[in-house]
Amino acid sequence: MTNVVSISLKAAMEGLATEVDTAFDQLLTLPGDLRDRLYAAMRHAAIGGGKRIRPLLVRAAANLYHVDPAASLRAGLAVECVHVYSLIHDDLPCMDDDDMRRGKPTVHKLYDEATAVLAGDSLHALAFEILAEPEWNPDPFVRAELTAELARASGPAGMAGGQVMDIEAETETFDLSTTTRMQQLKTGALIGFCLEAGGILGKVPPEGRRPLRGFARDIGLAFQIADDLLDVEGEAANTGKAVGKDAEAGKATFIGLVGVDRAKQQAQMLVDQAIGQLASFGAEADLLRAIARYVISRDR
Amino acid sequence: MTNVVSISLKAAMEGLATEVDTAFDQLLTLPGDLRDRLYAAMRHAAIGGGKRIRPLLVRAAANLYHVDPAASLRAGLAVECVHVYSLIHDDLPCMDDDDMRRGKPTVHKLYDEATAVLAGDSLHALAFEILAEPEWNPDPFVRAELTAELARASGPAGMAGGQVMDIEAETETFDLSTTTRMQQLKTGALIGFCLEAGGILGKVPPEGRRPLRGFARDIGLAFQIADDLLDVEGEAANTGKAVGKDAEAGKATFIGLVGVDRAKQQAQMLVDQAIGQLASFGAEADLLRAIARYVISRDR
Repeated sequence: MTNVVSISLKAAMEGLATEVDTAFDQLLTLPGDLRDRLYAAMRHAAIGGGKRIRPLLVRAAANLYHVDPAASLRAGLAVECVHVYSLIHDDLPCMDDDDMRRGKPTVHKLYDEATAVLAGDSLHALAFEILAEPEWNPDPFVRAELTAELARASGPAGMAGGQVMDIEAETETFDLSTTTRMQQLKTGALIGFCLEAGGILGKVPPEGRRPLRGFARDIGLAFQIADDLLDVEGEAANTGKAVGKDAEAGKATFIGLVGVDRAKQQAQMLVDQAIGQLASFGAEADLLRAIARYVISRDR
Repeated sequence: MTNVVSISLKAAMEGLATEVDTAFDQLLTLPGDLRDRLYAAMRHAAIGGGKRIRPLLVRAAANLYHVDPAASLRAGLAVECVHVYSLIHDDLPCMDDDDMRRGKPTVHKLYDEATAVLAGDSLHALAFEILAEPEWNPDPFVRAELTAELARASGPAGMAGGQVMDIEAETETFDLSTTTRMQQLKTGALIGFCLEAGGILGKVPPEGRRPLRGFARDIGLAFQIADDLLDVEGEAANTGKAVGKDAEAGKATFIGLVGVDRAKQQAQMLVDQAIGQLASFGAEADLLRAIARYVISRDR
């Protein structure tokens, strides 16, 4: 694990975070009626939080094919909507029961549970509205393909399926392959969408997106291992949420199975492998390479 | 309110209900892994319940333009996924807190709350996967437009927005126009999608879909009034859920504002008006006309 985050990555992250916040601010303008509470809850969760890794991955993957930044922002907003909705629902008392998220009270704490359920559902619908709207991209093939990919990545065969497995992990002991599969679905599927989206926006046919998928698989696993390491070693101040919860709940994690040292080695190996997938690209892949290194850095 | 439901409507309803159940049975095949519990919960909610009014409306609207029945089934499945997911979330303890739905235990009662949240989220994603998949419809314009319409109809500017207003109605007294607006969002927006979907599948340009939108608005309101009448007058055995809950919760309803007799007159007037919107169509609109009459019948 390195502490080095390049200046240009930091600039790209900060720039994109501003773009994302500005776009959500516009998309989630209070309607000035009885739905204001719902929109305020959505704004609380969607604006001003997180590193926006997923929109950054979409942007970086789209950069490989010189895609219009407005188009990659749009696809990035959609996946961020899905990510944020999943956090809202994950934090509910019946799920992880978290009071804090990104250093702020969770939606159900600040508002109430019903509003949190509906704010999550609303961001979920907004994701698909953002992807399908014709004014941002005239190519209906691109819009329909992005929609299908995001639905697959977030549904029962993707993120939601992984979340259910995660719940089962609290009562069952998982072996290494089951743990890996759970994490591949829970966080890997959405990361896979981010890379795939870059290819779709770049009009790359499915067979040409194989390096993107390989890269996504590798950094998805590295990301999850790094997350588990933070959970074991991190401090609440850095992550903005309670730590050590996974261990407390007795969940099987990669670290629990192989130990901290081997987990760190494995994460580094995955990052090297991910960067290897980009061998055929030049400087246009530098942002993706920097993100791969960042994923396991201590700074995030 | 009439008690007459035509033989042909009954046959159409039963036939479509079987089509919908068969399709969900295939779409929701248990994966044979740790996600089986999630899929079982989705199956419990999605298969073998309800009158499938929304898929029937899609089919009936698509019939106006001689659309392939397989295509209208597909769009109908998508809107039914959204409807079913909203019922699962609506029934949660933090929302309406219902134990029974369609004569069966609700998902969180039979499984648990976390599974109910994720089963709802999964059906929500499945709706968009169904709409966006290229194999069922080669026209990406149709797929992208259906996706955008369904996202709008189900999100904060549609169904979810109406649900939030409905929650506010428990503590605030609504005037007639606010109540109407709430119902237009909560149930009307999704019904609007059903009719619009028929036009989109029939390649009717937006300006040509005006009668469909008028029909949807009229029967949407009639449907809601009929629902409120069932809530006041119905028996638990007929509706398969607890009755009188709206009145108990002190919610403003159209009936509460104008009384039972005027509400019945208004519902009949809306149905006549809806049928009037179809004046330019011949026998191909008979199914839609029959549904309009059915919406306020005692048999449903």
